[in-house]
Amino acid sequence: MSYTKNLAELGLVLPPVASPAGAYVPAVRSGNYVYTAGQLPIIDGELAATGKLGAEITAEQGKELTARCALNALAALDDVAGLDNVVRIVKVVGFIASAPGFTAQPAVLNGASELLGAVFGENGRHARSAVGVSELPLGSPVEVELIAEVR
Amino acid sequence: MSYTKNLAELGLVLPPVASPAGAYVPAVRSGNYVYTAGQLPIIDGELAATGKLGAEITAEQGKELTARCALNALAALDDVAGLDNVVRIVKVVGFIASAPGFTAQPAVLNGASELLGAVFGENGRHARSAVGVSELPLGSPVEVELIAEVR
Amino acid sequence: MSYTKNLAELGLVLPPVASPAGAYVPAVRSGNYVYTAGQLPIIDGELAATGKLGAEITAEQGKELTARCALNALAALDDVAGLDNVVRIVKVVGFIASAPGFTAQPAVLNGASELLGAVFGENGRHARSAVGVSELPLGSPVEVELIAEVR
Repeated sequence: MSYTKNLAELGLVLPPVASPAGAYVPAVRSGNYVYTAGQLPIIDGELAATGKLGAEITAEQGKELTARCALNALAALDDVAGLDNVVRIVKVVGFIASAPGFTAQPAVLNGASELLGAVFGENGRHARSAVGVSELPLGSPVEVELIAEVR
Repeated sequence: MSYTKNLAELGLVLPPVASPAGAYVPAVRSGNYVYTAGQLPIIDGELAATGKLGAEITAEQGKELTARCALNALAALDDVAGLDNVVRIVKVVGFIASAPGFTAQPAVLNGASELLGAVFGENGRHARSAVGVSELPLGSPVEVELIAEVR
Repeated sequence: MSYTKNLAELGLVLPPVASPAGAYVPAVRSGNYVYTAGQLPIIDGELAATGKLGAEITAEQGKELTARCALNALAALDDVAGLDNVVRIVKVVGFIASAPGFTAQPAVLNGASELLGAVFGENGRHARSAVGVSELPLGSPVEVELIAEVR
């Protein structure tokens, strides 16, 4: 199966790998695993939005933002291991900048999870943690990291 | 050693695996590792409590809730790899919904850690991070994920 | 290459492994990986500071504190696998206790990342997530965990 082809058929294009916001790298391959850095919803070098879920950002907008984080994660993964070498997506953690009382983090993170499902099918089904946090780098509404098994 | 037997001797019963709150699965096996999703303190399909540590929820209640998360994690682990195939519990991360000024996250997460110690003995001794966060899915007071090595 | 020697040339000394704040261990080796517990900026058995970034703690102070967390993580790693057996640092997660509006978590976590780069060179380049949280154990301003590949 060609995941690269799936991606194209979904109308998605891997963006350039986002520059790290600090002294680290976008992804590391170690053995048969790739760990990505926490990905922000960066488009063309800039954050697509700032603010918090439950305040400036709606859950629906947040879902699109986590999908973008996932796409950026796939770009980082592709860069170190090649998208078509993915065996499966193992784990996703999503940090959701949340205004007081906002508890729909799972719905927001579904943006990332559904994109991974669309690209990798059964092999995109991952374990996941969704967490609401108070502040994220640069004011980002969301941040998503993943672990993938690769061949 | 039979961990299933230990569990029974402790008077504990693995619950049905909790339905994911989003587009993911409760646990993934990859090679010799199992990653669980972030587990909420769900009993019979419902959150056992909502609220924050240091406000609606006491540290002692929180400890019981993280123990429940750990039990739910073991159910998810058992489902994909079998409890008796555990080599050791490697890592636990606990997210504790914390009211301002609440800093006893470690004591709260001990509920999960002590249950894992009781079930797996030396092989239940894990590395761990306890973190206080502002909001958790569905208003849950706690969320716990783990990584286990399995044979 | 001797990382122990690098450390000495940097004027750094591995501290005694900090006692866990709960029912867990400072680091676990599983296969070719070491997972450390979340490390606090403990010096001589006491937190070097308490408070939040953007309030009581400046970004520059925070950077020194995450460097200390990284040093404590290396002590825990050394204890279970030996520093000179590190193949590479794979992943770092930094939780930064953040006052409302503080979004420079990446700059703060650079303290840890730069120390790892100084000690391990190219092999210290890791994937990383920086997250702002509301409260950390014992009132700590920062908490850092890492995963290392070892031989």
